[in-house]
Amino acid sequence: MLIVQKYGGSSVANPERIRRVARRVVDLRRAGNEVVVVVSAMGDTTDDLIELVKRVSSNPSDREMDMILSTGEQVSIALLAMSIQTMGEKVVSLTGPQAGIVTSDTHTKARIEDIKTTRLRQELDAGKIVVVAGFQGVNSHNDITTLGRGGSDTTAVALAAALKADLCEIFTDVDGVYTTDPRMVPEARKLDSVSYDEMLELAHLGAGVLHPRAVECAKIYNIPLHVRCSFNNEPGTIVEEVNRMEKTLVVTGVAHDLNVAKIGIFDLPDRPGIAYRIFKTLADASINVDDIVQSSMRDGTNNISFTVTQSDIRRALTLVEDKIVADVWAGGYTHEPEVAKVSIVGAGMVSNPGVAAIMFEALADENINLDMITTSEIKISCIIKHVDGERAVKALHRKFKLDQEPV
Amino acid sequence: MLIVQKYGGSSVANPERIRRVARRVVDLRRAGNEVVVVVSAMGDTTDDLIELVKRVSSNPSDREMDMILSTGEQVSIALLAMSIQTMGEKVVSLTGPQAGIVTSDTHTKARIEDIKTTRLRQELDAGKIVVVAGFQGVNSHNDITTLGRGGSDTTAVALAAALKADLCEIFTDVDGVYTTDPRMVPEARKLDSVSYDEMLELAHLGAGVLHPRAVECAKIYNIPLHVRCSFNNEPGTIVEEVNRMEKTLVVTGVAHDLNVAKIGIFDLPDRPGIAYRIFKTLADASINVDDIVQSSMRDGTNNISFTVTQSDIRRALTLVEDKIVADVWAGGYTHEPEVAKVSIVGAGMVSNPGVAAIMFEALADENINLDMITTSEIKISCIIKHVDGERAVKALHRKFKLDQEPV
Repeated sequence: MLIVQKYGGSSVANPERIRRVARRVVDLRRAGNEVVVVVSAMGDTTDDLIELVKRVSSNPSDREMDMILSTGEQVSIALLAMSIQTMGEKVVSLTGPQAGIVTSDTHTKARIEDIKTTRLRQELDAGKIVVVAGFQGVNSHNDITTLGRGGSDTTAVALAAALKADLCEIFTDVDGVYTTDPRMVPEARKLDSVSYDEMLELAHLGAGVLHPRAVECAKIYNIPLHVRCSFNNEPGTIVEEVNRMEKTLVVTGVAHDLNVAKIGIFDLPDRPGIAYRIFKTLADASINVDDIVQSSMRDGTNNISFTVTQSDIRRALTLVEDKIVADVWAGGYTHEPEVAKVSIVGAGMVSNPGVAAIMFEALADENINLDMITTSEIKISCIIKHVDGERAVKALHRKFKLDQEPV
Repeated sequence: MLIVQKYGGSSVANPERIRRVARRVVDLRRAGNEVVVVVSAMGDTTDDLIELVKRVSSNPSDREMDMILSTGEQVSIALLAMSIQTMGEKVVSLTGPQAGIVTSDTHTKARIEDIKTTRLRQELDAGKIVVVAGFQGVNSHNDITTLGRGGSDTTAVALAAALKADLCEIFTDVDGVYTTDPRMVPEARKLDSVSYDEMLELAHLGAGVLHPRAVECAKIYNIPLHVRCSFNNEPGTIVEEVNRMEKTLVVTGVAHDLNVAKIGIFDLPDRPGIAYRIFKTLADASINVDDIVQSSMRDGTNNISFTVTQSDIRRALTLVEDKIVADVWAGGYTHEPEVAKVSIVGAGMVSNPGVAAIMFEALADENINLDMITTSEIKISCIIKHVDGERAVKALHRKFKLDQEPV
């Protein structure tokens, strides 16, 4: 089998942990598998580098940020390769550029566009374990790019897809995907398997175990993901295409995201192109917009509300104030710098129309007010006050009996 | 003017010093020059990385060492570029591979073979200050190589040569080239200028200010080097082709190297190919041999003695014992793990035959025994007991009146 493994920063946080990872990788190789290992920067390395940057510049260019941050993974891959060498296995470390990971030009948030597998194949064919730096690649200018936080998951899945791997194992410091955040709700239960779509919603909504782009990529190329803990040998959670005919579970998990800010633009003229103008301006500034809700007023005008991460709110507000309001002839805008988003996720929801009502009931029982509601086929999300976030998650987990094994 | 500047590790040891370097670079740019800056890793970074490596492996491969050590300069170039950005100048950082620095394949001791200047020229033409990572390049396998300690000087000079720079400034923590090590001899005097050949001998012999490969490269391409201190604006020492007709100075400086080990191989048959076999075996193991002395015995056999750095002595001895003695039908071998080398250097020596005698007199007066003697046109070196090294340097400095301005 060709297996791609990915180890996060906490799994390689110090030399002892690196040796443990090396041991696991070598065992897998000796069992007759071809192994590609993707690693993140060691523990706090990225944060340490960011601290160093702050002492030099308050506003460094994204290109130079990528230049400095990409060294974190480069250190990890060399150390892991050295550790594997001490166990007598052939191994080679490759930076993102060396591994042929070609990305878009956008620094700090690059997307993988292609993986040129010549070198990877050549090293695997030579019998080597290949250790690849996650989170990074090279753009069309031969500049080093990074994929943004959590990008190492994407590196692993993209490599698995490009190499047609049989399995992609994502090692992390938790032992799988839970019905909700176990730090918040102790009764949270580990799921044996979830579908790509469910995982996608859970990832997007702050479950935090897997980067959503990694899940998207795995879904497109149908790569089974095994999310598991690097500190033990227990099975974790398999993310794969699930046949829902066999399952009766309506709600799989409760997700939350406390890092949400909201902007509302009101008194918009009711004509084509308004939404386009707003979100084109934000997209051009690389601001990721999460939820969007548009509602029509009685007077024929529209309101559009949307959410962004809290770190983007300042830049987004500047654009709204300086450009967007005038561009779209808006009456004005409002914003909430800190709100929370809670969501229930489940592939069975689509055929169970009463689920939304049960969710709203649970929140009403807690006297939690709903600010925005958005729905998809497999999830329902509510934007609520930041302070109500944790209470909402607990109430929903209880209401949908997620602490109990499904029948 | 196109000026290449190089700043060593102590000049960029912390954010404050990086800002000071940025200031100097920006000033040079604003004075109308094109500027390429080569930087080393920050202060102790390389040592810290080596410590980290030791916790993972006692015998890492050279390729992986290069992978990890090259991150040190990558951090420096990004930080310096960011600092220059805060001052409003256009700047781009380039790793060795990005700067087109193509090296031989040998890891940890690669030699620069070519510099593909397309990208460098393009960035300079765009009006940018270009910050290049010293000490590193890329080999024919697209692997990252390092040039070995001191290689950043070589990077700077090679870039100056490839870009046909007008001047190459080497900033360091000392303010120039001295008649001998001022830490050892307080009366040591700073030299205003030295020739390439003198500098080459001084560098080779442990003066430590400039890497000898850098001086060689500067000599070949006739690049004037200005060795100066990064902490002040004083002129340092110019290294350039000097017309000795105008100078009466016979001895320019006294060099020493306390990091020397000696091996003697005796009772060698007097036939062609013996020296070749010995030094081919050592060269294949990438052991740098410094001095070689061969002498013929009365019985028709030869003895060959040579010196290596102390860090190479164990490997060299293993080769001598396991292979070389049998290969060349030698009677046996001896070794001294710690000896010292003292040398007098001066381009005027060639026309002053009495200089050697004065040197030997000074050492005899100190009761210092001579173990090996080697000479070139511009230097005379003696291998002596390690314990006598410092005393010999002081005696020679005094004897040749190097503390006094030349007439």
